[in-house]
Amino acid sequence: MKINKEMVKNEIELIVKDKIKNIKEKNPLVHNITNYVTVNDCANILLAIGASPIMSDDIDEVEEITSMCTSLNINIGTLNKRTIESMVVAGKKANELSHPVTLDPVGAGASKLRIETLKTLLKEVKFSVICGNITEIKSLISGENGGKGVDAELEDSVTEENIEKVIKTLKEYSKRIKSIIATTGAIDIITDGEETYIIRNGVPEMSKITGTGCMLTALIAAFVGANQEDKLKATVTAMSVMGIAGERALEKVDGVHGNLTMRNYIIDEIFNMTEERVQEKIRCEKYY
Amino acid sequence: MKINKEMVKNEIELIVKDKIKNIKEKNPLVHNITNYVTVNDCANILLAIGASPIMSDDIDEVEEITSMCTSLNINIGTLNKRTIESMVVAGKKANELSHPVTLDPVGAGASKLRIETLKTLLKEVKFSVICGNITEIKSLISGENGGKGVDAELEDSVTEENIEKVIKTLKEYSKRIKSIIATTGAIDIITDGEETYIIRNGVPEMSKITGTGCMLTALIAAFVGANQEDKLKATVTAMSVMGIAGERALEKVDGVHGNLTMRNYIIDEIFNMTEERVQEKIRCEKYY
Amino acid sequence: MKINKEMVKNEIELIVKDKIKNIKEKNPLVHNITNYVTVNDCANILLAIGASPIMSDDIDEVEEITSMCTSLNINIGTLNKRTIESMVVAGKKANELSHPVTLDPVGAGASKLRIETLKTLLKEVKFSVICGNITEIKSLISGENGGKGVDAELEDSVTEENIEKVIKTLKEYSKRIKSIIATTGAIDIITDGEETYIIRNGVPEMSKITGTGCMLTALIAAFVGANQEDKLKATVTAMSVMGIAGERALEKVDGVHGNLTMRNYIIDEIFNMTEERVQEKIRCEKYY
Repeated sequence: MKINKEMVKNEIELIVKDKIKNIKEKNPLVHNITNYVTVNDCANILLAIGASPIMSDDIDEVEEITSMCTSLNINIGTLNKRTIESMVVAGKKANELSHPVTLDPVGAGASKLRIETLKTLLKEVKFSVICGNITEIKSLISGENGGKGVDAELEDSVTEENIEKVIKTLKEYSKRIKSIIATTGAIDIITDGEETYIIRNGVPEMSKITGTGCMLTALIAAFVGANQEDKLKATVTAMSVMGIAGERALEKVDGVHGNLTMRNYIIDEIFNMTEERVQEKIRCEKYY
Repeated sequence: MKINKEMVKNEIELIVKDKIKNIKEKNPLVHNITNYVTVNDCANILLAIGASPIMSDDIDEVEEITSMCTSLNINIGTLNKRTIESMVVAGKKANELSHPVTLDPVGAGASKLRIETLKTLLKEVKFSVICGNITEIKSLISGENGGKGVDAELEDSVTEENIEKVIKTLKEYSKRIKSIIATTGAIDIITDGEETYIIRNGVPEMSKITGTGCMLTALIAAFVGANQEDKLKATVTAMSVMGIAGERALEKVDGVHGNLTMRNYIIDEIFNMTEERVQEKIRCEKYY
Repeated sequence: MKINKEMVKNEIELIVKDKIKNIKEKNPLVHNITNYVTVNDCANILLAIGASPIMSDDIDEVEEITSMCTSLNINIGTLNKRTIESMVVAGKKANELSHPVTLDPVGAGASKLRIETLKTLLKEVKFSVICGNITEIKSLISGENGGKGVDAELEDSVTEENIEKVIKTLKEYSKRIKSIIATTGAIDIITDGEETYIIRNGVPEMSKITGTGCMLTALIAAFVGANQEDKLKATVTAMSVMGIAGERALEKVDGVHGNLTMRNYIIDEIFNMTEERVQEKIRCEKYY
């Protein structure tokens, strides 16, 4: 086992340091081409962390819109042929301007349209970070059908037993496509092909809320937008922030409420998140 | 009056028994082609009851998506010519695979486009359950304008006086189109043309929340998906579950909050719903 | 300084009087062609105040839908070429029927598409009320790029120092295009080119919630729909109602929750709003 479980305190401080502060100070404007299911939550979570959202998907304006933004977040949750075109055009323009671009490959592998769209996006656009559950990332890698769509399947989950193998695959893929790969689940993995981090924050109840994945990728777009000099640590911080918000929201729900109130509390917790809170609660390991 | 107001306890137990348990165990994946107003609530209420949602409306993928699902839910709330085509194609594929298909004819009769779309859908697709308010169902039957759109009009409500006449009409229509018909209002009616049930759960405050109807039809898609051997009783249970969630949410709101918090609490209550709770609170009659 | 800070009590009573009561009694049906980010909140806030929402954007039905409504609310937040056409067609039909039409020029100036769309809308449709932040209204006036999209920029805010100049510009514009102009910010301004009111309700925390502007314009559509004999005072009341709901929501949030709970409480407060509460809390001045 090559995972250092005892990551020292000052290493963690270095990861988290200034990542939220930079968002609050720089107020990055994040252009989202995203699905209509969770779009409102994505907008509110971006405002909660200190960024600003703009949603726009018409091909006649996405280049201009993305030009005035700090980063671009592409989510294929409810893709259609009109918006796919806009994703490609906006992505290329963001690349041209060296804006960070994030990708949430929702339901990757669930249809030929999604497989082909992701192939096109990966060919035409360079992504700073790709964030999805392990099933989606597997589909992306294999270009094959990843099974049951948007939910991580049990047989596709990362465990203590398979983690080394999973990390090896993710690192290779990350190196090949030159994107940070972030997989979500009970164990999150973040790698840029060289360095790899593991996050154990979050609670299973988050999977009973629609859009926790979409919200996370939107947050990552804000974190890398405001922390462009260290996108890997920005992504690690974003993922622990989301997990910690989930843990704290669950405590507040306390068995009385259900998934809708928990969704509300997660966004509330992002609104009240501090770097001190992250440093106290982060469960991060570095993989050597 | 032919309504048996004293439905005996073990009859009710037989209706409710295992209906929620089967959802939690089978975790049906529900494909929704739905409106962009209430789509987030529909996704969260499906997760709350123990099902999984997938929203997809591009004609190039809806057949594949619906093929991997348990049931299909079609809602015409914000229909457009692009999604209408997808509804037909997805519906036919679901029929081919014997997947249950539900229809929410939102605003039926409010425009020629809605009237024509519903005609096409009813001609091309066999629906397991059609659920709407009495105005919408009337429009469906008459193919004529049902008045004020998405809200049940007063003169269109079911009362103790007109209930026998309404049931007669609904039974005939149900038999003719071979779909379970479910109408919502102060008095809900569910019939498959042979058996007819009446539900008196729910509170008027639910009509001050957008999407309670859409959420209910999404829930029905989950209930019939996980209980295909008895779709009528599954629909009856779904409708009482929604009504009971509304009653309990109103108690929690307790005059302090408003319609938004009540919406949140309804979904929370669905998350915490148990068969025991349904059996205790259900107000169900069988019509003979 | 020409602002009368001591508006007398009975003047204020005259502004507010019956404005909410008329909505509750007449239950205006508001047709919304709006963005998919905040559409659910717009629907729920319309229900909260006592109106009914209908969302519809297909060109084949918008004329019929708007014909059965009381007022039409056009919001360009996530415009696309399909919906732009529908906005024009619906707007012309609403004008033909003398229905009040409101416009929320979200992100005006952020792209050529928005600039051209607004030009077309202003040419083809007569708006009763145009409501946006000062940046958006400036863009509308100049037809030029107003900067950072949907958020009011600091240098674009209304202050005690520049308010006279701003009001002069707004009055001229209002007269020229024959629409009530309502600008939002720390200081709201409402003018019909003759009379001008200033509202100081609301709290800065409202800018951390997506859609407060969209919700406000939807509310205005309900207020002018139910109070067509005095659209200016109806708009003034709507804007103070939204601000007061924000103030009360913030008190309830009380540092414990975040922006999502505050969003929920704002809509709850609209649900519980009374004319007495408005008269007690309104901070309104008349500009002479």
